[in-house]
Amino acid sequence: MNARTDTHLSALSPTAALRALREAPPLVQCITNAVVTNFTANALLAVGAAPAMCDIPGEAGLFSGIADGVLVNLGTPTAEQRDAAREAVRHTSRWVLDPVAVGVLPVRTALAAKLLEHRPAIIRGNASEILALAGEGSGGRGVDATDGTDAAAGAARALALRAGGVVAVSGPVDLVTDGERVVRVHGGDALLTRVTGGGCSLGAVMAALLGVCAPLEAAVAASALYAVASERAGARSEGPGSFAVAFLDALDAVAAAPAELDARVGDAVAAR
Amino acid sequence: MNARTDTHLSALSPTAALRALREAPPLVQCITNAVVTNFTANALLAVGAAPAMCDIPGEAGLFSGIADGVLVNLGTPTAEQRDAAREAVRHTSRWVLDPVAVGVLPVRTALAAKLLEHRPAIIRGNASEILALAGEGSGGRGVDATDGTDAAAGAARALALRAGGVVAVSGPVDLVTDGERVVRVHGGDALLTRVTGGGCSLGAVMAALLGVCAPLEAAVAASALYAVASERAGARSEGPGSFAVAFLDALDAVAAAPAELDARVGDAVAAR
Amino acid sequence: MNARTDTHLSALSPTAALRALREAPPLVQCITNAVVTNFTANALLAVGAAPAMCDIPGEAGLFSGIADGVLVNLGTPTAEQRDAAREAVRHTSRWVLDPVAVGVLPVRTALAAKLLEHRPAIIRGNASEILALAGEGSGGRGVDATDGTDAAAGAARALALRAGGVVAVSGPVDLVTDGERVVRVHGGDALLTRVTGGGCSLGAVMAALLGVCAPLEAAVAASALYAVASERAGARSEGPGSFAVAFLDALDAVAAAPAELDARVGDAVAAR
Repeated sequence: MNARTDTHLSALSPTAALRALREAPPLVQCITNAVVTNFTANALLAVGAAPAMCDIPGEAGLFSGIADGVLVNLGTPTAEQRDAAREAVRHTSRWVLDPVAVGVLPVRTALAAKLLEHRPAIIRGNASEILALAGEGSGGRGVDATDGTDAAAGAARALALRAGGVVAVSGPVDLVTDGERVVRVHGGDALLTRVTGGGCSLGAVMAALLGVCAPLEAAVAASALYAVASERAGARSEGPGSFAVAFLDALDAVAAAPAELDARVGDAVAAR
Repeated sequence: MNARTDTHLSALSPTAALRALREAPPLVQCITNAVVTNFTANALLAVGAAPAMCDIPGEAGLFSGIADGVLVNLGTPTAEQRDAAREAVRHTSRWVLDPVAVGVLPVRTALAAKLLEHRPAIIRGNASEILALAGEGSGGRGVDATDGTDAAAGAARALALRAGGVVAVSGPVDLVTDGERVVRVHGGDALLTRVTGGGCSLGAVMAALLGVCAPLEAAVAASALYAVASERAGARSEGPGSFAVAFLDALDAVAAAPAELDARVGDAVAAR
Repeated sequence: MNARTDTHLSALSPTAALRALREAPPLVQCITNAVVTNFTANALLAVGAAPAMCDIPGEAGLFSGIADGVLVNLGTPTAEQRDAAREAVRHTSRWVLDPVAVGVLPVRTALAAKLLEHRPAIIRGNASEILALAGEGSGGRGVDATDGTDAAAGAARALALRAGGVVAVSGPVDLVTDGERVVRVHGGDALLTRVTGGGCSLGAVMAALLGVCAPLEAAVAASALYAVASERAGARSEGPGSFAVAFLDALDAVAAAPAELDARVGDAVAAR
């Protein structure tokens, strides 16, 4: 569709995005899974946002019209959460879809297909989930990424064009694309995959950043923040328990002084 | 209603209340939101109480008749939790209502009005929530306190008289009133507002203290404990992640040696 | 039934079990209570397993056929979780039942009786819960163990024979029996009872080990791991908050280098 490669299409600044967030703290609604609600709320607070886990029918749609950003994460989708998700996405365009374990499990897979019609601003998942949502993979056995990030590049681009939003594939190198441009974000610490909620809370931070910048910038900025904060936490921890604690400290510290973030972002190149 | 001001009406001792709790650990039932269940249970255990998150219909009413104190927190009120809450409050008078985000969101607002008829011993919220529950404010945009504690003093007093219980308004200075008397509790650390569950778990500790003392004393004692423990934790942490950990350590340490708590409590003065 | 006592019936090796787990990380499905989902997932990740909290009807049964081990914990059994549990146990024999507060509360007590028909590989609880499930005790007032481990030895043996699986009674000394043999596991730190999720996550780790060894070996290995890891964490913490963090670090460290575990296991003796 676009023959140009390696052409610089834009300058993205996570540093500027985080500064904007700290100046005007966004209200973020999360419809998310039972495993990570606490960690996600604490990650949002650490970054500087105001979390609200408003996820019941009769309230979720009303609230999404007030919130600056909305996360819909399909990790443990109870019947009420499924109704709440359908309500919420009708009243906002600033929402992130995290299709946890889509492709493996039927209830959430059907829900994800329905939610996609409401055009999420960002879809965030691991390579297996993005492949499954794009119709090109099995979805792995759950939340593990059994496929590599690069293996999902084509699927991510196709999904972005089809869904009309940005797709962020999390992995050792994060890949973010709007279907036309591809940006890679470098760095991070493997301990982030040894605690639950790393990826899920990343989606929530992307939703927070939708309150202050465009989808591509939001997805890239959140990914850069997580790369730097996880490295900082990794250097100060003795295992997964102390890592999770140090990571929340680091999210706060890095979001408050985000100067080093821009260096983690590769050039935006045309998607092939 | 009462023309006297600055009259000392009683001596309240958080120190004595905490000592009583450690001697006879109360069993505390929590019907609370999905974000803070873990932190709340750990806060209760740290203080010295025994938590039980019994929150389904068919069990909640039975259990509230056994429990020494009950918390009903409206943060994420699923249909089953709403039924469980209605069951629970029929079988106990030692219960705390935490009206999270009441005024903003319709389902919980209607539930709170219904639950109020069963006369909670204590209502705990931030200023926005107390104003909304008293019918005098908008309720803010969620869990944030967008109104100051003092701005809610009149509403708190009116609500206490109407509901027939104690109202505790959490903020930089906590305000506790039974409609006749007002007590202010001083101190605390702002990091407690940078982690989720600070206020929610405070309501649970008030419920625990209902097992060993009267509502006004329980609300004041819990507030004093939180003020001192959060200062202690703030001095030992590097950010919100390490603060939450240090806060649980501090709750245990201060509850085990509560001598300094009484100094945080202002004189009980007549409400104006 | 068996007159022999103190006869060595087998050699059990937690060290070998943990090494097998690290070599082939099992996928563990958890249908568990809202209080401990996060801690349980993090404990499984720390040990080296892959957690998936798949707990809704329409997915739970499908997933239990894929998972290497399944935990069914009755702590906060919503209607959907009860349906999910009934689905899950029909498609696997490698599952652990944790009958939280059975005997005290009617909904979960009825569910536990029904689930028992599907023969859990392991039943894990405190003495009060095991006594209640065996029909010999009151079940205490909730999650507290109000009965001693030894007091439940006879009930544990009878329950194991009736249910056709292994029964693990958690306490200062853990007792594991298949009805014929009894094994005691020594050690541990009392701080593990001052944070929520110690016992619940132990059941999840037993489910993980069902992916690599037999039920008796799995229950003993998990108990030995928890004894050693909690001692290690206790030596490095200042209270319950820092203990929980250090415990996750210790689970990782001990599971990665499990040589010392075998020494914590008493000889397997014939049940009397």
